[in-house]
Amino acid sequence: MAKTYNVGILGATGAVGMEMLKVLGERNFPVNELRLLASSRSVGKKVNFKDKEITIQLAEKGAFKGLDFVLGAASNAVAKEFKDDIVASGAVFIDNSSAFRMDENVPLVVPEINASDAFKNKGVISNPNCSTIITLVAVNAINKLSKIEGMYASTYQATSGAGAQGPVELRDEEAAILNGGTINPSVFQYQIAENVIPHIGSFNDNLYTTEEMKMQNEGRKIMHLPDLKVTCTCVRVPVVRSHSISVTVLTENKVELEDVKKVISEAKGTVLYDVPAEKKYPMPIVTSDQDLVYVGRIRRDLVNDKAVTLWCAGDQVRKGAATNAIQIMQALCGLDF
Amino acid sequence: MAKTYNVGILGATGAVGMEMLKVLGERNFPVNELRLLASSRSVGKKVNFKDKEITIQLAEKGAFKGLDFVLGAASNAVAKEFKDDIVASGAVFIDNSSAFRMDENVPLVVPEINASDAFKNKGVISNPNCSTIITLVAVNAINKLSKIEGMYASTYQATSGAGAQGPVELRDEEAAILNGGTINPSVFQYQIAENVIPHIGSFNDNLYTTEEMKMQNEGRKIMHLPDLKVTCTCVRVPVVRSHSISVTVLTENKVELEDVKKVISEAKGTVLYDVPAEKKYPMPIVTSDQDLVYVGRIRRDLVNDKAVTLWCAGDQVRKGAATNAIQIMQALCGLDF
Repeated sequence: MAKTYNVGILGATGAVGMEMLKVLGERNFPVNELRLLASSRSVGKKVNFKDKEITIQLAEKGAFKGLDFVLGAASNAVAKEFKDDIVASGAVFIDNSSAFRMDENVPLVVPEINASDAFKNKGVISNPNCSTIITLVAVNAINKLSKIEGMYASTYQATSGAGAQGPVELRDEEAAILNGGTINPSVFQYQIAENVIPHIGSFNDNLYTTEEMKMQNEGRKIMHLPDLKVTCTCVRVPVVRSHSISVTVLTENKVELEDVKKVISEAKGTVLYDVPAEKKYPMPIVTSDQDLVYVGRIRRDLVNDKAVTLWCAGDQVRKGAATNAIQIMQALCGLDF
Repeated sequence: MAKTYNVGILGATGAVGMEMLKVLGERNFPVNELRLLASSRSVGKKVNFKDKEITIQLAEKGAFKGLDFVLGAASNAVAKEFKDDIVASGAVFIDNSSAFRMDENVPLVVPEINASDAFKNKGVISNPNCSTIITLVAVNAINKLSKIEGMYASTYQATSGAGAQGPVELRDEEAAILNGGTINPSVFQYQIAENVIPHIGSFNDNLYTTEEMKMQNEGRKIMHLPDLKVTCTCVRVPVVRSHSISVTVLTENKVELEDVKKVISEAKGTVLYDVPAEKKYPMPIVTSDQDLVYVGRIRRDLVNDKAVTLWCAGDQVRKGAATNAIQIMQALCGLDF
């Protein structure tokens, strides 16, 4: 009989937690027990998984006993609160928060890029930032043609990146615009409907946001490129789901466009979607509710003749969060991801 | 008595034509006769200008006699059809189409940057592309600190850049999403509500769009920088009005951030709007329905230590089109613009 696993989801009722449940089912991960853990607010609620009804239990010390994996879909604070107990209980904690990503004892993993790092875990593995995952999956194959030295990235990030209330606020504001109501932003800094906001995360001393610095800092760790330089501008746009990114990839040696297209088309996790004449290029309406990163608009960079410029998009709730965590678990179990 | 001028607007009933009428009034341009010209479809319609009612006349050969200026707010085809007749009638044709922009006999003018070029006209002056105007006004002051050698630009372009029907289609689609209707794009290639589309203009052989190449080609001519290299990605976003642009400016020598902020705050046409801690950065909801280009998020580029990265936004129907044309006319008349 095939091996099965006891899996917990910490923060099961949030946007990422619910998506993890969905992806677990879709991928037929061999679950024995599925334990859904959340704050007291959600305890007792019932959730369907395949043909079973599962009752949400309280996330508390001792709640992780007997689990093989805990998928973290909660805040940094909650992740920090329960980490030691999860590890002590013998489970591997695959955490989607940013709490442990830059900890040198914690592997930061995108399975298509550095699955082998996951096996070096000491009980905790971090899931990277959503825009970072999508961008790196798109460009990773280029690194095999020539070392990536730098990137310019401008993001077009969906409202669901801010959690389940993001799209609710967007739709409420759209209705207010159409019907003459008032707009009172609470999830975002300003009105997001019919607007764009160049502010995600908080501002560092270097005037980049925490979100913008993740592309460089997490990128270095995931791709094993300690000198990678990334200038990133993160922008929230009035989209429900899927982040898009305009990227220039600066390589050590000149890469040929045909080679770039070939390796992207062959790489795990990417779809080469690049037929401009047929209006085929990645867009949120194409890339939502699935797990692959679409790459298109591949062309010679005009500033630096060695470099390439491209456009990618992917579902950040799935590949940028829930799916990536489950792929890490699949990789650790020796399963195809 | 102060001099007054006879002004025609060719394509008076379109989005840019109507905005020209508004800006002419706001700026109190010394108009003697205002002649509004359009296709037969609009002939006979009446439009208010200040305390007068003006009847739309047919745009046809001979219709430009006696005018000092003709502001072109029509298509390339219409601009080409009437250019010779306008020039022969003795008027200066300030044209917003792209028909003559790269003609070496036609100045391409952003008054804050190269007003003096306007005086070298042989009857025709071109108004540049909207994203190009907004980006160049934002970065021009940096060129005085150190020669600009290159730029990376990713745009977030409003639906009104596609004409008056652009925002109508956006709002129709928003209503269809909220109320469960169907979406049938006709202005844009795909659904624009809750989506972003990396395709404006048509694709060149080099896989950049015509819109993307304008930033480099028009930028070279306007800034007198024949070797300027620009990699641009143009993206339509679900915004009604104001284009935003994420820009990295590559300079010959290192520029200091404080100097960049100082020259931008002092430059004509720009507003330094850059207090991240107070959530002050340019956004469409801040920059619409006015004539200045807002510049913020100014920071050291992380890929190239000599360069700066910034974010700018401006109303592309006004400064990116109507206002720029009227400022050219003001400059030619020796008036403050």
